[in-house]
Amino acid sequence: MSFFPASLENLIDKFASLPGIGRKSAQRLAFHVLALPDAEAKAFADAITEAKANVRCCSVCQNLTEGEICSICASDRRDKSTICVVSEPRDVLSIERGREYNGTYHVLHGVLSPMSHVGPDDIRIKELLVRVAESDVQEVIMATNPDTEGEATAMYISRLLKPFNIRVTRLAYGIPVGSNLEFADDATLNRAIEGRTEM
Amino acid sequence: MSFFPASLENLIDKFASLPGIGRKSAQRLAFHVLALPDAEAKAFADAITEAKANVRCCSVCQNLTEGEICSICASDRRDKSTICVVSEPRDVLSIERGREYNGTYHVLHGVLSPMSHVGPDDIRIKELLVRVAESDVQEVIMATNPDTEGEATAMYISRLLKPFNIRVTRLAYGIPVGSNLEFADDATLNRAIEGRTEM
Repeated sequence: MSFFPASLENLIDKFASLPGIGRKSAQRLAFHVLALPDAEAKAFADAITEAKANVRCCSVCQNLTEGEICSICASDRRDKSTICVVSEPRDVLSIERGREYNGTYHVLHGVLSPMSHVGPDDIRIKELLVRVAESDVQEVIMATNPDTEGEATAMYISRLLKPFNIRVTRLAYGIPVGSNLEFADDATLNRAIEGRTEM
Repeated sequence: MSFFPASLENLIDKFASLPGIGRKSAQRLAFHVLALPDAEAKAFADAITEAKANVRCCSVCQNLTEGEICSICASDRRDKSTICVVSEPRDVLSIERGREYNGTYHVLHGVLSPMSHVGPDDIRIKELLVRVAESDVQEVIMATNPDTEGEATAMYISRLLKPFNIRVTRLAYGIPVGSNLEFADDATLNRAIEGRTEM
């Protein structure tokens, strides 16, 4: 049963359909938006429409952009011979935050997941192969998440890249910087020992 | 520094401006909206615009409604001689959920709060007084929250209602049904003992 006007219920439903937003939170958000000045509420609605209309995928790396190619692919200062393959646009942000990596990216927009019916044709693997085939790429770094699906995707793509005779690498596994050995899980600790380096 | 296109950043900002939504959650929500089919993203934007345009306050009880008066005020089956005063529209929902109360409501849209510069003229107190003066009201139940501001608001309004010579009551304090005495705070337990009833 509902005691809210239909258009308010509708707005609550929209918020509740977002990931991680429950019914109560959706109510709070909807009330907040209703209480905004008209101009701000309109700006919110416009932000959705405009982001949806303007944001597209970079024709080179498939990262989100408003132009034809993204700022990283357009930059002269980035090393075009190295491609870091990530699953989501937000992963680009994570790696850029480190300010160490100077190559380019390739955003898959997903990972292989038979359980969710995501196959090789559903993510941007073909675009990566075309890129490797047509430009002078020396190394592809697989930076998908270190979980089952991310691993499988990295493995699958690395096999497809074999014929190109380029370097294909994977992010190092190990204990996180600043963490505590006591709380590291067995798998991570084993990988850290396997991957130990000379001091 | 930002690596997202401007209109995506803008959408993230909008989500981050909502209460209880941090930067990371806002990113997740914005990516989710971007990934929606065009029609659904449009429906989301429209839901905001329409709720903002259609929802107004009931001319009688100030609850949110799309018509001139809300469904509760318009109903023949509600007892118009009893008014339950709440601070927010969602409180109406909470009381209605109990299916016991059969009177009408009055929504203040806030509580008195000197700290936030909310005075008697900023919430719908005047409308309540006009209602009590002009219609046959027998009882006003103060159902603001049992916190400092809710208490002060209830106290303030009850004094204004004194001259009308009607019954002004307050929700009972006590231990919540189904709770455990061990976890009840002192103030609640003291109020529960004060307000004890014959068995």
